[in-house]
Amino acid sequence: MRPVNEIRVRGFRGGGAACGIKKTGRPDLGLVVSDLPCVSDVVFTRNRVFAAPVAWGKGLRSRSSLRGVVVNSGNANACSAKGLDAVRATSAAACRALGLPGDSLLVSSTGVIGVPLPVEKIVAALPGLCASLSPQGIVAAGDAILTTDAYPKRGVRTVRVRGKAVTLGGIAKGAGMIAPNMGTMLAYVFTDAAVRPADLRRVFREAVGLSFNRIVVDGDTSTNDTAAVFANGACGLPPLAGKDLAAFAEALRSLLLDLALMIVRDGEGATRVVRIAVTGAKSDRDAEKAARAVATSPLVKTAVYGADINWGRVIAAVGRAGIPVDQDRAEVSIAAAKVLRRGMRTDPAAERRAAPKIRNDAYGIDVALGLGRGAWFLYFSDLTHDYIRINAGYRT
Amino acid sequence: MRPVNEIRVRGFRGGGAACGIKKTGRPDLGLVVSDLPCVSDVVFTRNRVFAAPVAWGKGLRSRSSLRGVVVNSGNANACSAKGLDAVRATSAAACRALGLPGDSLLVSSTGVIGVPLPVEKIVAALPGLCASLSPQGIVAAGDAILTTDAYPKRGVRTVRVRGKAVTLGGIAKGAGMIAPNMGTMLAYVFTDAAVRPADLRRVFREAVGLSFNRIVVDGDTSTNDTAAVFANGACGLPPLAGKDLAAFAEALRSLLLDLALMIVRDGEGATRVVRIAVTGAKSDRDAEKAARAVATSPLVKTAVYGADINWGRVIAAVGRAGIPVDQDRAEVSIAAAKVLRRGMRTDPAAERRAAPKIRNDAYGIDVALGLGRGAWFLYFSDLTHDYIRINAGYRT
Repeated sequence: MRPVNEIRVRGFRGGGAACGIKKTGRPDLGLVVSDLPCVSDVVFTRNRVFAAPVAWGKGLRSRSSLRGVVVNSGNANACSAKGLDAVRATSAAACRALGLPGDSLLVSSTGVIGVPLPVEKIVAALPGLCASLSPQGIVAAGDAILTTDAYPKRGVRTVRVRGKAVTLGGIAKGAGMIAPNMGTMLAYVFTDAAVRPADLRRVFREAVGLSFNRIVVDGDTSTNDTAAVFANGACGLPPLAGKDLAAFAEALRSLLLDLALMIVRDGEGATRVVRIAVTGAKSDRDAEKAARAVATSPLVKTAVYGADINWGRVIAAVGRAGIPVDQDRAEVSIAAAKVLRRGMRTDPAAERRAAPKIRNDAYGIDVALGLGRGAWFLYFSDLTHDYIRINAGYRT
Repeated sequence: MRPVNEIRVRGFRGGGAACGIKKTGRPDLGLVVSDLPCVSDVVFTRNRVFAAPVAWGKGLRSRSSLRGVVVNSGNANACSAKGLDAVRATSAAACRALGLPGDSLLVSSTGVIGVPLPVEKIVAALPGLCASLSPQGIVAAGDAILTTDAYPKRGVRTVRVRGKAVTLGGIAKGAGMIAPNMGTMLAYVFTDAAVRPADLRRVFREAVGLSFNRIVVDGDTSTNDTAAVFANGACGLPPLAGKDLAAFAEALRSLLLDLALMIVRDGEGATRVVRIAVTGAKSDRDAEKAARAVATSPLVKTAVYGADINWGRVIAAVGRAGIPVDQDRAEVSIAAAKVLRRGMRTDPAAERRAAPKIRNDAYGIDVALGLGRGAWFLYFSDLTHDYIRINAGYRT
């Protein structure tokens, strides 16, 4: 699951620049734009406290027909004065430099909360950045949106439709799901597919629900999370339908899941990723609650870090999830070894079988409740010394 | 808030012994019993997965007239075969040794989940322990119920009623709120007050609601939590009423809060305790949700550890608590310095004022939502390197 080194999608150009927000001088301004009109969709954080670009984006009337996105990193433009003014100035300067009508671009920010955005640096840098955009520049745009990320998150999928190649390219960032003071999840997908607006919205939201909404690093939700898709139809085919649309949806799901797993693997301090699957709950919603209780439990997450087959912590987290649980029916498997059956420990041999597997960098924990057909899965990272080091020392 | 060294309550005797459950040879069996009939009340964990002694205790018909408690540490008697048989054997052996009718004692266990309780060791040790009970032995009983605790939790209160001293003595254990694989919160209060059953139940549950239910170490709830009160009337006064009952209730609240704060201060790896108070929510329930989101946020807890005035993490946690929040009205104060007003950072001077105070071992964070009259407070500990060390390495 290494990031690809090249992303090219017909009709899209991108680029990145260092405009001076990051004191390190690293790239902090990225832009991707389509040469053609797009069908688009955007989803935002559900946090009730959200940054100015999210507030602005939620109100955008052009949200289903955006041409691309401009993103700054190093500053979240959240909880500080004149945040909306800064978003408007960024949008206006970028659209002007590209010769596009106003409100043609999504605007995102990621970085520190509570510090006024130095928007004049962005406005000054945009003409040069826009002049430098290139078909191979989506990768550079992706690099410019990183913050605490240990590595870039990129992916490409190709779907054959009527003998033609339809391409999907994606970039994302995030190293906490979410570290609200710093990291934030952003993801953008660009495709030359022609897709009807309602179809794009449906398949994109399904894919987000099965990818970005299924990862947990620390259980904290950001003020800036944004995921967007842009489809410009440059492949030259009519709008996708039937099995072609299904193949596109599958490629989109696969791409977003890859990007999501890259984020959780890069979770702050993470050494392992566990897939927790809960089945047999009374409803999917109940199963999700149980999976989230496990995925956010500090005791489970430290046990994963310590390579400890600690099913007691798993079942205790499920028990406090606020859903119906009958412990006499509950079963837990760790790395495919059934360690709890009908609420009782099976035998030490099962734990010994699992022991070497939980030292791998990825494995599964399965909880079966035996009460119904509700099911949910999530991917989560462990809680480690490095997590404490990163987050206790971040601003000092 | 140091634990007292002596607890004597008229008509109660206690003691502790090492029966061999703990491999270290430290005391692991405690017992306190009243010479007189008692009025009593017990509250248990709300976790849907609970240990055998909790299941047994919930079904006890004698729960309002128990004479005392027998507790083993080192084994939680949870999720393993024949757990209920072990509870029944413990209860029967203790009552027999004390010459009491069956079901006169509450039974509790705390320790590792999933390992069968070696009840034969308990049964063999009970006659000797019961023969050794003494009025000063409540302290020894308290020592025998400790697990990962760094220190014992004890307290005494005295209330003057009609010229006589009414005494309340309490013992507790717990170093995680809760570490389900190991630590568990247990607390017992013994008093020579005469209290009517309905009054005792009311004032005890109020006091538990303001003490043990207001502390958070890791957000994980145990399978074994139990708190109980025993009132034997040995002070020689008629049942408390009016202002005497109010004074008793206040002493009980104060005692339980002391014990609760001892637990959160001894939270695994904790270096600081923060009181988070949320006001101005639409309801108390909403305020509690916001306070719990802050108290369990890994990002807030690591910021507390790192002495970082990271109000962005605080307000972001409130924003994801699933309650109505209007960020344009929200205010945050840290160590009494207002750092966020109407959703905007105030000024760096406020943060500088707070900076030295958040290096203390206790301070407050106040969040005002400006939406209503709902309010809640909680005490929570920080998330530290030692927490990771303790919980990633516990069983290895």
